[in-house]
Amino acid sequence: MAFDVSIITLYPEAFPGLLDVSILGRAKREGIWSLDVTDLRAFGLGKHRQVDESPAGGGAGLVLRPDVAAAAIDSLDVADRPVIYLSPRGKPFTQALARELASGPGMVCFCGRFEGLDERVIEKRNMIEISLGDFVLAGGEAAAQAVVEATVRLLPGVAGNQASLEDESFSNGLLEYPQYTLPREWEGETTPEVLLSGDHKKIDEWRLNRSKLLTEARRADLWAAYLNGQRIRASETDDEHD
Amino acid sequence: MAFDVSIITLYPEAFPGLLDVSILGRAKREGIWSLDVTDLRAFGLGKHRQVDESPAGGGAGLVLRPDVAAAAIDSLDVADRPVIYLSPRGKPFTQALARELASGPGMVCFCGRFEGLDERVIEKRNMIEISLGDFVLAGGEAAAQAVVEATVRLLPGVAGNQASLEDESFSNGLLEYPQYTLPREWEGETTPEVLLSGDHKKIDEWRLNRSKLLTEARRADLWAAYLNGQRIRASETDDEHD
Repeated sequence: MAFDVSIITLYPEAFPGLLDVSILGRAKREGIWSLDVTDLRAFGLGKHRQVDESPAGGGAGLVLRPDVAAAAIDSLDVADRPVIYLSPRGKPFTQALARELASGPGMVCFCGRFEGLDERVIEKRNMIEISLGDFVLAGGEAAAQAVVEATVRLLPGVAGNQASLEDESFSNGLLEYPQYTLPREWEGETTPEVLLSGDHKKIDEWRLNRSKLLTEARRADLWAAYLNGQRIRASETDDEHD
Repeated sequence: MAFDVSIITLYPEAFPGLLDVSILGRAKREGIWSLDVTDLRAFGLGKHRQVDESPAGGGAGLVLRPDVAAAAIDSLDVADRPVIYLSPRGKPFTQALARELASGPGMVCFCGRFEGLDERVIEKRNMIEISLGDFVLAGGEAAAQAVVEATVRLLPGVAGNQASLEDESFSNGLLEYPQYTLPREWEGETTPEVLLSGDHKKIDEWRLNRSKLLTEARRADLWAAYLNGQRIRASETDDEHD
């Protein structure tokens, strides 16, 4: 059974876009996942297919109408899939959330534009608000592409090498260590000796150490969570010894 | 003078993609910003235009060669533009960073693939590592599109209404209040009375209050930062009164 992705957008021409290249494109052609795109405009009202109106209470911009948004959602066979509204007000998207989504049957992504979406349809259609990060896009389309890409690449058979999924940033709570490849010397800089030593224990130690240094230097938040996790694990091990 | 965006990617066919629709597409056609795309493959080595090699020290996947990446970067007129490497190891992308980038001359975005980019070229070309969030994509392309979109929409003349830029999530450190529009009643739910009252002071109070409640409920991190900012502002006001 494929992982089914539906996108609702005012810009259907922007899809599949990036979702058709590289490993995602191949996996789509192999039937591991499917993508269908619904044009929100088709559910607009009147001759001009209007989808938006001024915000109640005044203010700049336009707000998407709840009836139009609901009609587009209701036109799909949503089944058990989560209906995601991409919005900076949402729950931050993380690798853990990508893993959770990847374990489900698929997703419906509603891409907003303008000043947002009428609150009532978010509630009435149990939409899950997900935020790509603390920044504002012109619309939800780029966020939807990123969420779909991060999720679909975790499906079995999509990434060529499952091992590379286990050895990347956030898989152990740390940022990934620096990588080097050929040539060994380039612009006067050489690959660190240890990586050429063939001593895999030493290489693993060096990489873990560099991951820790990088995480501590760049991301105090992740570093604190990592230390906390280590402490909990250590105290659990102590308990087992008691 | 236009805001000049250069993209270096193995998938040039994925651009402009989303960057050509809506307000961004219009602004590009008006000359407010420009986009050029460089095919990294064109700088690959040998008959097969190889761009990657196994990681030094072993491990899954492939790493982009520093010489190939540098050749692609050096083919551009970088001038004073930041060279951004989209990577989950980077500094988290935020609205403040979008504003900082929007105040500059443009940007060069290097989109990685595979297991990453040789560390030496990141250092030697003073690349700025920026992360879209704590998740892993198949490549930097979706992140580049989001960073460019969030930045370009802040350029003067891109968003139709500058006021809507001032009244959105993160502009005051809070998530945006819920929005409502027509119809007034929909599926038994009515627009909150206060928004129909015409009393703009009351409406502003209601919106600020809802923004606060939402931020406190969903984002303890932003809420703490907001309260801290309020405290600093209050103590500065006290100082002025002394």
